[in-house]
Amino acid sequence: MKLYERCANDIAELIRSGVLRPGDKLPSVRDASLARGLSRATVFQAYYLLETDGLIEARARSGYYVRAGSLPVKFPEPGDSTPDGVARDVDVGQLVFDLLGSVGRRDFVPLGSAFLSPSLCPLTRLARHLWAEMRDFDPWRLTEDLAPGNEALRRNLVLRYAIEGIAMDPAELVLTNGAMEGLNLCLNAVTRPGDVVVVESPTFYAALQALERLHLRAVEVATAPGRGIDIDALAAALQRHRVAACWLMPNFQNPLGSLMPEDSKKALVALLAEREIALVEDDAYGELYFGAKKPLPAKAFDTQGLVMHCGSFSKCLAPGYRVGWVAGGRFARKIEQLRLMYTLSPAIPSEAAIAAYLNQGGFDRHLRRMRSALISYQAIAVKAVQDHFPAGTRMAVPQGGYFLWLELPETVDTLELHVQARERRISLAPGPLFSADRRFTHCLRLNYGHGGDARFVPALRTVGELAMQQCAAGSR
Amino acid sequence: MKLYERCANDIAELIRSGVLRPGDKLPSVRDASLARGLSRATVFQAYYLLETDGLIEARARSGYYVRAGSLPVKFPEPGDSTPDGVARDVDVGQLVFDLLGSVGRRDFVPLGSAFLSPSLCPLTRLARHLWAEMRDFDPWRLTEDLAPGNEALRRNLVLRYAIEGIAMDPAELVLTNGAMEGLNLCLNAVTRPGDVVVVESPTFYAALQALERLHLRAVEVATAPGRGIDIDALAAALQRHRVAACWLMPNFQNPLGSLMPEDSKKALVALLAEREIALVEDDAYGELYFGAKKPLPAKAFDTQGLVMHCGSFSKCLAPGYRVGWVAGGRFARKIEQLRLMYTLSPAIPSEAAIAAYLNQGGFDRHLRRMRSALISYQAIAVKAVQDHFPAGTRMAVPQGGYFLWLELPETVDTLELHVQARERRISLAPGPLFSADRRFTHCLRLNYGHGGDARFVPALRTVGELAMQQCAAGSR
Repeated sequence: MKLYERCANDIAELIRSGVLRPGDKLPSVRDASLARGLSRATVFQAYYLLETDGLIEARARSGYYVRAGSLPVKFPEPGDSTPDGVARDVDVGQLVFDLLGSVGRRDFVPLGSAFLSPSLCPLTRLARHLWAEMRDFDPWRLTEDLAPGNEALRRNLVLRYAIEGIAMDPAELVLTNGAMEGLNLCLNAVTRPGDVVVVESPTFYAALQALERLHLRAVEVATAPGRGIDIDALAAALQRHRVAACWLMPNFQNPLGSLMPEDSKKALVALLAEREIALVEDDAYGELYFGAKKPLPAKAFDTQGLVMHCGSFSKCLAPGYRVGWVAGGRFARKIEQLRLMYTLSPAIPSEAAIAAYLNQGGFDRHLRRMRSALISYQAIAVKAVQDHFPAGTRMAVPQGGYFLWLELPETVDTLELHVQARERRISLAPGPLFSADRRFTHCLRLNYGHGGDARFVPALRTVGELAMQQCAAGSR
Repeated sequence: MKLYERCANDIAELIRSGVLRPGDKLPSVRDASLARGLSRATVFQAYYLLETDGLIEARARSGYYVRAGSLPVKFPEPGDSTPDGVARDVDVGQLVFDLLGSVGRRDFVPLGSAFLSPSLCPLTRLARHLWAEMRDFDPWRLTEDLAPGNEALRRNLVLRYAIEGIAMDPAELVLTNGAMEGLNLCLNAVTRPGDVVVVESPTFYAALQALERLHLRAVEVATAPGRGIDIDALAAALQRHRVAACWLMPNFQNPLGSLMPEDSKKALVALLAEREIALVEDDAYGELYFGAKKPLPAKAFDTQGLVMHCGSFSKCLAPGYRVGWVAGGRFARKIEQLRLMYTLSPAIPSEAAIAAYLNQGGFDRHLRRMRSALISYQAIAVKAVQDHFPAGTRMAVPQGGYFLWLELPETVDTLELHVQARERRISLAPGPLFSADRRFTHCLRLNYGHGGDARFVPALRTVGELAMQQCAAGSR
């Protein structure tokens, strides 16, 4: 064994045993060579080998890190979902409110929350920008900025798209009250009551709620934890139903965490273009990737203007500021008009503060820190689930975002589990929230975005124990 | 003639001749007695007489002011509107966007704007509160405040209602992204596609747009510049159509400026209660009254929880912050759920800054100053219209808000006038914006909320001259 191989082996062992954990930073090549008395070239070769093996990754201007997913996952991944393909009216709104009522409260451990810990965000810096921007704010801009919205912010977004290789006309960008409003506006722009809309199975409950509010019908299509929506199943659904639009999350789908490979995204966009079907693309988690490179959105492959790409600062920078955006393609004007009719504009102070923050630089550095935190939180969550959840549990471990999707043994009823956990001040997001016909009764979406909270692992243990009790009772 | 009568006569003459103008402050009793060498009792008697005559008014903790409307108005008031009573689909959205595209730009004189001058608002103080509140903001509150919303702000609103004599359960209050979202949510909460909704004639175009977006049909009901909607005509419309809801503005209606007398409001609420019909009450201008007392909303007379009362800080305190509210009666829970599905929440920094501002006091002082400014702007606008607009023009001069409604001679086409004015960088809001069948072709809504702008009177003169040219061409 060569010197650099021995060095690499030592580090790999530290990772496998959990001493070094996903998100941890390795010593610099220089420091490691000094500490181990090896040449820098040797250390470099060792790191290169580990990188090739997928155990560590180099991050630009930052160094080497233990990769997400380098921890061996003992629980198998859930299989593809198997929805029945029926178009149905949606009626989940009340269930969502009943279940998620206590999700935001500090006396609850927010395993069921849709938000990550706001303490990961630069809240004080944003506050300083609020003051700096608004103290001498030009009063005219309070009306001028209503449409098409804060120019500096829109320019900055166009620039960020350009860096990804996506050319965009600033006129295509519409600022919205968070991604939520953006998604709703998109759907509103391309549908009429009674229309059929394709969603993933499972899907984000907010998509179901939006369909319900607009009197639309849902068709759920098979989706895999690894690769996202099944393109063949989608093609079959488009054959079977007259579909007005698709609402999909190609990147880090909520709740599955699935990431569509680029080929699938291309095939998706091509399939929809063939039939002139609009795509509402929810990319709220796009910045929270754990790999070396930001995954492209489906929008990147759109040549027909059919993809409405929705993003937000709520998950990655400024929770509660309520600023998101839509790159609306051929529907941009319609989307903007709907917004002007509905909420007029996002809050001008929020837009101005975020624009100033982006302008000053540091957003990408902040994102790197945030991603590192999420990678280590994910490792903590995966370990806790494996340690405490019943045998037979399946788990989808995503390459970004902050959700684990758990498929528990079939005897477990997660609606019941939710009630039991709530009594112990733990919130859960049970599977039936994520489909129009309330399947996934033994599934859970688990938020690890609060993985730094001291109550996090004990809460997971509690939930695991409750699930085990259900299993034991079920097998009696 | 007694001494105090002579003193009162002198002042009345100053008002009639326009030397003293609506909104001007009179010298204090003490100062006036020193200056004129009269006893304080005499000056007090003189002021009392002027007050009885309706020329001046006492304002609590502030002194005596020349009353709004004390300037003699030479142009007659327009008559009641005469809509045809047909329920029709709405299709005004595109017209609104086409006409109002340039309304917010600083290079335009914003006679067609829906906003008053933001320089009337305490923008720097609000900015200071943004910083003070957000620099050490408790991260948990970023999720806790989502529903039911900033507690301090809701408590303060309940207190303000209580001072008006309206008892309200804090749980009934839903914070929204401006009144616009509130109004839309209310309508959404009580209707289904195809339903019929009663609106005033003329009505605020945003109401028409909301109906259009939700696929509702409009029935317009006769409305008078003085007294608001005609209760008998409303009763007839309710006989003729199955009405799902009414969307009305009892106080300072946009565009008419009409103020319903209390008796009418009571009759309205009773009539709707009889038939269990919900009322969406737009009270966005309620704080901008020119009389001695704030007019009560229809909500004050509601015992059935059928009135959804919508207010906002956008017109009176914090333009662009996008914070409004709904007191939703029996529909409050539904409204809140719709908001959670649609925009989740107003911006947390906006809510926090406004709550801190209200808490610190000074809001009512600010409102008094703002009302004084609007009263004097109205006087400037009324004079300019009378000086420069064609004979035969009718004008509704409201007791609050910042709109004049003008009925020009019938040969004038205000859509055409709008085009001509736009070439001269003056925006106008022509009458056809305010009805589903685009009547009011010779009417205009005129914003005097920018009456302090040096370009204001010259712009009015220009519009008047353009109208005269149209009259001259029409009579040839």
